[in-house]
Amino acid sequence: MRDAAFIYELCDYPLNRYQLNLNEVLFHNANGYIGVRYDFEEGYPERYDFTPSQYINGFYDYAKLPQAERLYGLAAEKQTILNIANTQTIKISFDGEEFNMFSGTVLENKLSLDMKRGTTLRKVKWRSASGKEIQLKVTRMASFYQLPLFIIDYEAELLNFSGPVVIESVHDGAVLNYTNPADPRIAGECIQYLTPISCEIKQGASYITSQTSKSGLEICSCVKHRLLNEHQYEFIVYNQKAVCRYDILAKAGENIRLIKYAVFCDSIRYPNCRQQAENEIEQALAVPLEYLYKKQADYLTDYWHNCMVEIQGDDSLNNAIHFNLYQLIQSVGKDQYSNIAPKGLSGDGYEGHYFWDSEMFIHPFFTITNPAISKTLIEYRYATLDMARKNAKIMGHKKGALYPWRTIMGSECSGFFPAGSAQYHINGDVAYSIIAYYLATKDIEFIQSTGAEIIFETARLWLDVGNFYNGQFHINGVTGPDEYTCIVNNNYYTNVLAQYHLTWAVKFYYLLEKNQGLSLLTEKIQLHSQEIEEFRRAAENMYLPYDENLKINPQDDSFLQKSLWDLESIPKDKYPLLLHYHPLHLYRHQICKQADTVMAHFILEDAQDEETMLNSFKYYEKITTHDSSLSTCIYSIMAARLGMHQLAYDYFRISARLDLDDVHNNTQDGIHAANMGGSYMAIVYGFGGFRLKEQGISFAPFLPDSWTAYSFIICFENSRILVQVEKNQCVFTLEYGQEKTISVYGKEYLLQDCLRIPR
Amino acid sequence: MRDAAFIYELCDYPLNRYQLNLNEVLFHNANGYIGVRYDFEEGYPERYDFTPSQYINGFYDYAKLPQAERLYGLAAEKQTILNIANTQTIKISFDGEEFNMFSGTVLENKLSLDMKRGTTLRKVKWRSASGKEIQLKVTRMASFYQLPLFIIDYEAELLNFSGPVVIESVHDGAVLNYTNPADPRIAGECIQYLTPISCEIKQGASYITSQTSKSGLEICSCVKHRLLNEHQYEFIVYNQKAVCRYDILAKAGENIRLIKYAVFCDSIRYPNCRQQAENEIEQALAVPLEYLYKKQADYLTDYWHNCMVEIQGDDSLNNAIHFNLYQLIQSVGKDQYSNIAPKGLSGDGYEGHYFWDSEMFIHPFFTITNPAISKTLIEYRYATLDMARKNAKIMGHKKGALYPWRTIMGSECSGFFPAGSAQYHINGDVAYSIIAYYLATKDIEFIQSTGAEIIFETARLWLDVGNFYNGQFHINGVTGPDEYTCIVNNNYYTNVLAQYHLTWAVKFYYLLEKNQGLSLLTEKIQLHSQEIEEFRRAAENMYLPYDENLKINPQDDSFLQKSLWDLESIPKDKYPLLLHYHPLHLYRHQICKQADTVMAHFILEDAQDEETMLNSFKYYEKITTHDSSLSTCIYSIMAARLGMHQLAYDYFRISARLDLDDVHNNTQDGIHAANMGGSYMAIVYGFGGFRLKEQGISFAPFLPDSWTAYSFIICFENSRILVQVEKNQCVFTLEYGQEKTISVYGKEYLLQDCLRIPR
Repeated sequence: MRDAAFIYELCDYPLNRYQLNLNEVLFHNANGYIGVRYDFEEGYPERYDFTPSQYINGFYDYAKLPQAERLYGLAAEKQTILNIANTQTIKISFDGEEFNMFSGTVLENKLSLDMKRGTTLRKVKWRSASGKEIQLKVTRMASFYQLPLFIIDYEAELLNFSGPVVIESVHDGAVLNYTNPADPRIAGECIQYLTPISCEIKQGASYITSQTSKSGLEICSCVKHRLLNEHQYEFIVYNQKAVCRYDILAKAGENIRLIKYAVFCDSIRYPNCRQQAENEIEQALAVPLEYLYKKQADYLTDYWHNCMVEIQGDDSLNNAIHFNLYQLIQSVGKDQYSNIAPKGLSGDGYEGHYFWDSEMFIHPFFTITNPAISKTLIEYRYATLDMARKNAKIMGHKKGALYPWRTIMGSECSGFFPAGSAQYHINGDVAYSIIAYYLATKDIEFIQSTGAEIIFETARLWLDVGNFYNGQFHINGVTGPDEYTCIVNNNYYTNVLAQYHLTWAVKFYYLLEKNQGLSLLTEKIQLHSQEIEEFRRAAENMYLPYDENLKINPQDDSFLQKSLWDLESIPKDKYPLLLHYHPLHLYRHQICKQADTVMAHFILEDAQDEETMLNSFKYYEKITTHDSSLSTCIYSIMAARLGMHQLAYDYFRISARLDLDDVHNNTQDGIHAANMGGSYMAIVYGFGGFRLKEQGISFAPFLPDSWTAYSFIICFENSRILVQVEKNQCVFTLEYGQEKTISVYGKEYLLQDCLRIPR
Repeated sequence: MRDAAFIYELCDYPLNRYQLNLNEVLFHNANGYIGVRYDFEEGYPERYDFTPSQYINGFYDYAKLPQAERLYGLAAEKQTILNIANTQTIKISFDGEEFNMFSGTVLENKLSLDMKRGTTLRKVKWRSASGKEIQLKVTRMASFYQLPLFIIDYEAELLNFSGPVVIESVHDGAVLNYTNPADPRIAGECIQYLTPISCEIKQGASYITSQTSKSGLEICSCVKHRLLNEHQYEFIVYNQKAVCRYDILAKAGENIRLIKYAVFCDSIRYPNCRQQAENEIEQALAVPLEYLYKKQADYLTDYWHNCMVEIQGDDSLNNAIHFNLYQLIQSVGKDQYSNIAPKGLSGDGYEGHYFWDSEMFIHPFFTITNPAISKTLIEYRYATLDMARKNAKIMGHKKGALYPWRTIMGSECSGFFPAGSAQYHINGDVAYSIIAYYLATKDIEFIQSTGAEIIFETARLWLDVGNFYNGQFHINGVTGPDEYTCIVNNNYYTNVLAQYHLTWAVKFYYLLEKNQGLSLLTEKIQLHSQEIEEFRRAAENMYLPYDENLKINPQDDSFLQKSLWDLESIPKDKYPLLLHYHPLHLYRHQICKQADTVMAHFILEDAQDEETMLNSFKYYEKITTHDSSLSTCIYSIMAARLGMHQLAYDYFRISARLDLDDVHNNTQDGIHAANMGGSYMAIVYGFGGFRLKEQGISFAPFLPDSWTAYSFIICFENSRILVQVEKNQCVFTLEYGQEKTISVYGKEYLLQDCLRIPR
């Protein structure tokens, strides 16, 4: 049974480079461990330039980070995610005529992603130059059930002829990372990071083991086929490549079906990755393929069960939001060795680094739908806490931890520190995500074992980076979220978040003390109540910039004294500005790449009154370019929060379809995962008015004019609540778990079974 | 006749790497066109690591400037000064025993620099392992008379033996630049920039012509010898090297004298550099060596005549100040293709780039002693004005010119823009030097032909970079001289200098208009009186930060709200801080690398009252590390200005002997030319209280306690004034030119012949 709301389909799409590049991303298969871009198995003509890459989340090599001036403490080395062995290639020819999409006649041409089954399906009907017709059906799957497994289920039906068919299936270890020296958001150097050290055939499977050049890691990929038709086969083994060739004598109407199993095992997770690959391939082949398909669908049934969002009245947006949520489960790391990269596992833009995107745009989704995933993401930060301590030392701090702005394994990979390491708010972002996890789960054991140590160590940095001035606590020389304004004093976002962070550090301290859960930790990190009182003092006296004249929170101390720059006067081809203006030119103007103060108002709405937030919103909206994909979702939420429903809806539309419509013109480099989380938030936090606070959860839903209804699920303290927003009422249903007090439109209700609240 | 005050001499100095490296710089020979570091002709043992480099001022290649993140407008390429063909090597052996300083016995060992003759002299008495004794005398000269010419006058006397002597004199084109990846102030990459394309022997001379890899330049060096003793010789020619070997049968007591003439001609100055080298070598050999020595001495007689400073009562400082002034004439470019690099021509620290050092620390010396040299330095800036216009465009400005922070041929070579391109004050510095040249010479023709165009074009940038805010003109997002505080708003130095610059732009406009000297220029650069009125408006409303509480000028808008950092608490081995602390850590503290506001008070003392300057001085002194060599001289001047005579003297001592005492522990990378100019200013502007203003020149001399007297020369409007400061009086003598009104201790006098003013 196909469910249209969970199918993303392209029919008879154009075979031009632009669309095909886009498809590499939109139809990529990933499971949080491996990711494979979508490319034609048979390849492309030479004039096309493709990046049929595949990745393992968190599997990296070191690359030089050349600094034009080698100042103290600047990162000299970065990690970079690696393109690993290519197992996508399958070439097929019919009596000497090789199939490809750019010769003969393409009679049908369809790609679809089934988000409930967790597979992509390619359907092609093709006629060769001599008139042979075939029907191709290729199903791909990156298994959620068995993470190292990627399958290509390749079927070719001979429609109107009989004859010899040759299939060559390739397993290629000679791979390079994609590079683009013209775009600072993509790696510029072309270096061979992975070197195959062995290529072997064992029991019908090919194994390629490769080593990284510097990080000392290994990866083994293994490919094994199952071909159901009568055939002969041979292996041709090269230094870095194995080709399995099948010769079949097929009859008209015969369906040739080749199942290509590929497994990828890295030495981070599997010390003996070669052996593990053998185990994994055996495991995959020990069961029927249908079993693996079923496991995939079961996994997704659970997933959708917990996080379902339904929009009635707009199929396109309903489909888009499912697409986005599907990408999130494809992208999110499933263990402490990985997190979520901005491009997920769909491309190597930003080199597979992890940023605040994870904590501030994706955590909020998982925290209230699949909190176990948020927990794993926090465990990743915990696993790299020692690296964050080292980073703090490099930055000149005597104690505490400072998370790097961008990283894979924990050390700073930011080359340009004014828009990188200077973004100290990352510490607050990590803390914010832990506090949110606690608020959603009340999992105090996890705070005690893991969360508190992060919270305290990162909180320490605020005391060291800030200082009292005229009785207030100032934080100087940092960069807020808006990278068009760097190294400033008292960035509002940073300060208000630091205040929240410090306040919660105090709360957790006394909460754990009461629970007798503190002594081991305080001994380990030498934390005393005196320091906690310093936290309190800084939080209570935190300076939050406010402009009496405009009645807004200035983005930082000097933001408002800078020149205004009329956005309308900037030619369209000059966007994004970062690709066309010198940083100093940007810094010197009141111009924002993305929501900064407006984002602070979203995450910490109680820090200011309504009027200030409204004024701020209106002020910053005029000067925000949304050159960052992290922006429109936040503007949507805050427009909703401040009662501007149509505006909220307009921003939401951009956010929801940002990759499907390639709004930023760079989806070919990978999805925008954070925006996908943001588009979810725009519905739940924006339209639904959902908030998760110490006092509990609250809602204030409105229904966009063009929708008939929408619904979403909230998992809160082990209870699952279905929220349905209709024209005249909101329906809250306790689907599972204990009764909860919820606040709706500012009024408290006890949700026992079902609540209907008129709108 | 030797004049001890003009001899810098080292006797029996230790033969360790440290001292020998230092000597490479302290005894280098240069004339503003070529510079040759001082190395032993016979070389060093392998364990020693030396940099026997030679340079041509302004002769460069392009090198990649790798940017960790390739943001728009960041320089991707820099120029770098080149180590050119080495003509220093002369090896000598006596009956098979090769002379070197690290075998046998060194009986005498002396190096001296004669600043009146313009030569260095090396004297060595040496006994070989077998007991042969020789006396070596080597005179070196970089000719001020014939700029491409470098001479080694090599004499070896056989003291107690006769026998065969072999000399091998080398001309080597296989050279690399010096690199040190550990120090950001020195190039880090080891690349062969210069490739020899021919090596030929013609009429007893060797010619090596080399090409740069990218800049399309050529250089030809030629070596020819004159050996007065009976000998046989042969050339051994390699691909990139020519060796001339002499065989002499010498008697005890015989003095062997080899004169090695080397000329260096580059294709910047000489389109046919190969032919020019031939002309130059013929010219050099057409006259007796004694003639060239005499021309050298004559040149220096003139030089000292114009700029003489004499200190009585402290021979060490008297010697040091002569040393410094000698280095300035060695370093300063003599044509529009070159300027003064921070290391002069004594090393490739800072890669031979030109900075503001020239305008703010060295110009003031030449402007009042040899204004023709200042004029040439301004002509260099004029020659690169088009590049400055391009640079302004890159930085986002629609019109005007922005000089690059560091450059050789005019394009920006600054890799780290927060402490580079952001230093917009360079525009004001260039303007300041032109204004000073005008004040000293009243050369309005030069302003009309050259200076005004620079002044106007650079002034335009202020209007574009700044903006009105609350009725005052603000300049945001720039960096002042203090590189420990980057990208700030309203840096006091920048603003007050911009105000002065704009004011003078207005003055020059109306002055030239009155002289009918404006129309061509205003047409060329599309300058109208309306824009001039905007200059005036910005100048009149320039915002100059002032703190009511401390009654000082804050370095910038936010400087005072940052953390103080007790300098005493920083371990000595953490200086200079830039090599031990992350930039953000520095930016976040009230800490100064060098004089910034205090420097502004020096150059524009009338912008603030006495009390403010005194308060500022005291405030900033506590937080200034003087990690820059441009700092102590300014503190000396301002201490003098504010009546703190002993403090002025203490700072002066550091400045005066900064290289001789290797205060910054990096003199081996080259002299600190700007500080040398600064040490001169500390006497003339500091102790002498000299000022050059629109109203005329003024003096307010004091005599440091430990001196008996001092004197200096001022060239002002074609008159030359000798100033002698003695215990009880100051004597002003008009040595040459028309009578002048001068102000002494605030009172005006007409100087006709000689004035004696009691102290």
